[in-house]
Amino acid sequence: MSLLSFFRSQKKTSASVARDRLQLILINERGDGTTPDYLPRLQKELVEVISRYVKINPDDIKVNLDRQDSLEILEVKIEMPQVDTAKA
Amino acid sequence: MSLLSFFRSQKKTSASVARDRLQLILINERGDGTTPDYLPRLQKELVEVISRYVKINPDDIKVNLDRQDSLEILEVKIEMPQVDTAKA
Repeated sequence: MSLLSFFRSQKKTSASVARDRLQLILINERGDGTTPDYLPRLQKELVEVISRYVKINPDDIKVNLDRQDSLEILEVKIEMPQVDTAKA
Repeated sequence: MSLLSFFRSQKKTSASVARDRLQLILINERGDGTTPDYLPRLQKELVEVISRYVKINPDDIKVNLDRQDSLEILEVKIEMPQVDTAKA
């Protein structure tokens, strides 16, 4: 299954309201099975970068961290109340 | 299917060599069906942030952009030759 089909299938199960959504997923796979300690800081900086491009309300950010064996998945979901492309 | 199971199934089909991999996925869904023009710049800045935490060789970065209807998926795959957590 491709990434595109995966997220298209996800989309169908969520509310069908036409809203703007931004989702950031960071997947970290360590060969030695350990997980790095910098992920929370990295996630914070990534959200800061995104907020320079899109107006983000902190209440609209949902963060989820999944871990299994050497695989770590950080998921940041952002619902955008209004689209505003602040040019850098 | 959860995100974790999706990426675990992906992992199995790829090479079984124990290497460190970092994957950044940015999913953008626009209610009005249009796609924003800032994604390439946003992607560049996100990779810059990541490179502050992990040593990245530009040759090891694979970028893929998938688009279908109002869904846009930007995928950045990074293979890490060595782990070096440069503390910010």
